Amino acid sequence: MTDDTRPQWDDLWTNVHLATLAPGTGYGEIRNGAIAVKDGRIAWLGPHANLPSKAQVQREHNGQNCWLTPGLIDCHTHIVYAGNRSNEFEARLNGVPYEEIARQGGGIISTVKATREATEEALLKSSLPRVQALLNEGVTTLEIKSGYGLDIATESKMLRVARKISTLFPVRVKTTFLGAHALPPEYKGRADDYIDLVCSEMLDTLVGEELVDAVDAFCENIGFTRAQTERVFRAAQKHKLPVKLHAEQLSDQDGSSLTAQYNGLSADHLEYLSSNGVRAMAQAGTVAVLLPGAFYYLRETRLPPIEVLRQHGVPIAISTDCNPGTSPLTSILLTMNMACTLFRLTPLEALTGVTRHAAQALGLQHETGSLQPGYWADFSLWAIDRPGDLAYAIGFNPHCATVFKGRVVDKNYRQT
Amino acid sequence: MTDDTRPQWDDLWTNVHLATLAPGTGYGEIRNGAIAVKDGRIAWLGPHANLPSKAQVQREHNGQNCWLTPGLIDCHTHIVYAGNRSNEFEARLNGVPYEEIARQGGGIISTVKATREATEEALLKSSLPRVQALLNEGVTTLEIKSGYGLDIATESKMLRVARKISTLFPVRVKTTFLGAHALPPEYKGRADDYIDLVCSEMLDTLVGEELVDAVDAFCENIGFTRAQTERVFRAAQKHKLPVKLHAEQLSDQDGSSLTAQYNGLSADHLEYLSSNGVRAMAQAGTVAVLLPGAFYYLRETRLPPIEVLRQHGVPIAISTDCNPGTSPLTSILLTMNMACTLFRLTPLEALTGVTRHAAQALGLQHETGSLQPGYWADFSLWAIDRPGDLAYAIGFNPHCATVFKGRVVDKNYRQT
Ligand SMILES: [Zn+2]
Ligand SMILES: [Zn+2]
Repeated sequence: MTDDTRPQWDDLWTNVHLATLAPGTGYGEIRNGAIAVKDGRIAWLGPHANLPSKAQVQREHNGQNCWLTPGLIDCHTHIVYAGNRSNEFEARLNGVPYEEIARQGGGIISTVKATREATEEALLKSSLPRVQALLNEGVTTLEIKSGYGLDIATESKMLRVARKISTLFPVRVKTTFLGAHALPPEYKGRADDYIDLVCSEMLDTLVGEELVDAVDAFCENIGFTRAQTERVFRAAQKHKLPVKLHAEQLSDQDGSSLTAQYNGLSADHLEYLSSNGVRAMAQAGTVAVLLPGAFYYLRETRLPPIEVLRQHGVPIAISTDCNPGTSPLTSILLTMNMACTLFRLTPLEALTGVTRHAAQALGLQHETGSLQPGYWADFSLWAIDRPGDLAYAIGFNPHCATVFKGRVVDKNYRQT
Repeated sequence: MTDDTRPQWDDLWTNVHLATLAPGTGYGEIRNGAIAVKDGRIAWLGPHANLPSKAQVQREHNGQNCWLTPGLIDCHTHIVYAGNRSNEFEARLNGVPYEEIARQGGGIISTVKATREATEEALLKSSLPRVQALLNEGVTTLEIKSGYGLDIATESKMLRVARKISTLFPVRVKTTFLGAHALPPEYKGRADDYIDLVCSEMLDTLVGEELVDAVDAFCENIGFTRAQTERVFRAAQKHKLPVKLHAEQLSDQDGSSLTAQYNGLSADHLEYLSSNGVRAMAQAGTVAVLLPGAFYYLRETRLPPIEVLRQHGVPIAISTDCNPGTSPLTSILLTMNMACTLFRLTPLEALTGVTRHAAQALGLQHETGSLQPGYWADFSLWAIDRPGDLAYAIGFNPHCATVFKGRVVDKNYRQT
């Protein structure tokens, strides 16, 4: 006979230290903790000493004295692409001028060309090693943008690959339509016409295919204007899709205020963000996504206004920005170190930036990104002495295990 | 009956592209190459089409279309230590002044304390994950320095651990005695007395225990003077041991000229190296070992004089400088990217810097560091499209396999 007052759990992890990252708790450290799962979600967590003695558990797991954090979240990536740009990297370092590289078809257009030409299967295959690199570091949620197609067929292909990744691997994928990433060569001199296409047929088609979770644009001198960006946002709004923006990376276009005006999930990059933009983001609850990998790779010197963001309580997330041209970075742990070393975030801010705040940048802050009852049981386990170790090491991976929706992930990314 | 004119090989790798890094050949690219091994050494290499048809081979290996490079070499590490310094990293980023951290026993002395207190077994155990991180990236030769003991017993313990690593793992370890790393607290105000100890009883004992392959010192305002350094070099000379030096990292002490004068293997760091020092190094054949990880972690802005080094033909090596205080970096691939991104080395210079020139910094340039007949069969295989990919990616590991002295290394670091 079953005693119905007893908690019935599927899985229980003991011999672990928890960093819950719950709001207002710092790391939310619970040394010698335990965490229980029911139906893929967190059923209970707390000090091991407080474990209800009557709980019935199907499977108990020994955490081997590891630290257990929320599964990490990479909230801004262009990880699906074909080809790479190592030849440009090498040419530039060998003194070939940028104009010469562009004349030879280099730059983003070379990635567009390779991505258009790749079959869907080849595109998936070339993207998988990068995705696996993130999974090897405990990533359980991943945002993937389109934006190397710039035509309907290829944008659709990219987003189908993104969706496919979430069926092949234990990872939650949020797709973002970034048609307004760059002007395709066939629209040269006709940016407004291209934005027409993006806002109408392209978005309509992709939404019809259920491929779009959010809409993004690149608002910059070398991208699209604030007015063009607003047209994209209005089109997104029509489809009830949340927006986000590549904003103030190389100059202040006041794109972050625009994003806030449309209740955007996040404004990303932000090296040239003004106090005005910060205030608008704070009021709208728009997350600041910082991308230290691009800052590093491009050898930028202008820092995002971290202190102003802190003062206004804007949530700060960080992300790899994984892309072939300006941040060929596939390590979320290294991103944490770069955020601390280059941007002077604290290790706590860096860890919050790849968990709770990264979840918020994807609209998932009530589902994942911190350890709370009812949230998805997405965990990463780490062989570390304290949570700050994750941001301190450079190019070191202390990842021990991943749990996705309550199930342990094995070395072949299969759930057991 | 054996036909003695036939080549008799133990192992043959085919379906590989070779980057031999042989002198004067750039990458030394041989697409569709093959490489043969006899008694742990390279017996033959060249285009597959030129393979002697009569060769007898015991084992043939399919390289799966990978690139095959010399095994990578990390020629400057402090990888054996106890504790870490993530608490200081975190405290600094939380605004705790350096003086306060020092008052609380932080800085190098905290590592000395932890390393002195650790048992030999614990010291080994805490160092292994870092060593394994390097092995996972195809490192087959590793330099390890002492210098966190600063007393005879602990310096000996560190170097025994370094030797032990080479017996447990498929890696060649070169040990370096760095007694003149910092002044131990018990010698406060008596630096010359400590150098007496280093040059006499300490070095004599460690040499007697066959623990020392080379001798190093830290010549700097916050380290030891040029005169003290020279006393260390003379003591090394007495024992016929090669020298190297932590030189011109924070100021120009002209330590590199001193190193050249003693025919030193390498001068390392070199941000403040003068043209004078470059010329002396060029004449002596002293390698310039650049350490971009420390440059990055300390947010230095003064670059080593790369162009002057190039003009004078000084061989440039690069290394992790793996250490807990100024470069907690355990990725040789990331070091390559940092050398390109931060120091503007070319990808070829970066790869040469972790192969042929790194071998030269250890006096091993006739044994390993390039693929040449008679050299040790130390290979790394990579799933890349071109050699430049190794330096281009950030935080990505395309390593497929390691071969050490002709034997394939498995996932558990065992040779098969
Ligand atoms: Zn981006
Ligand atoms: Zn060093």
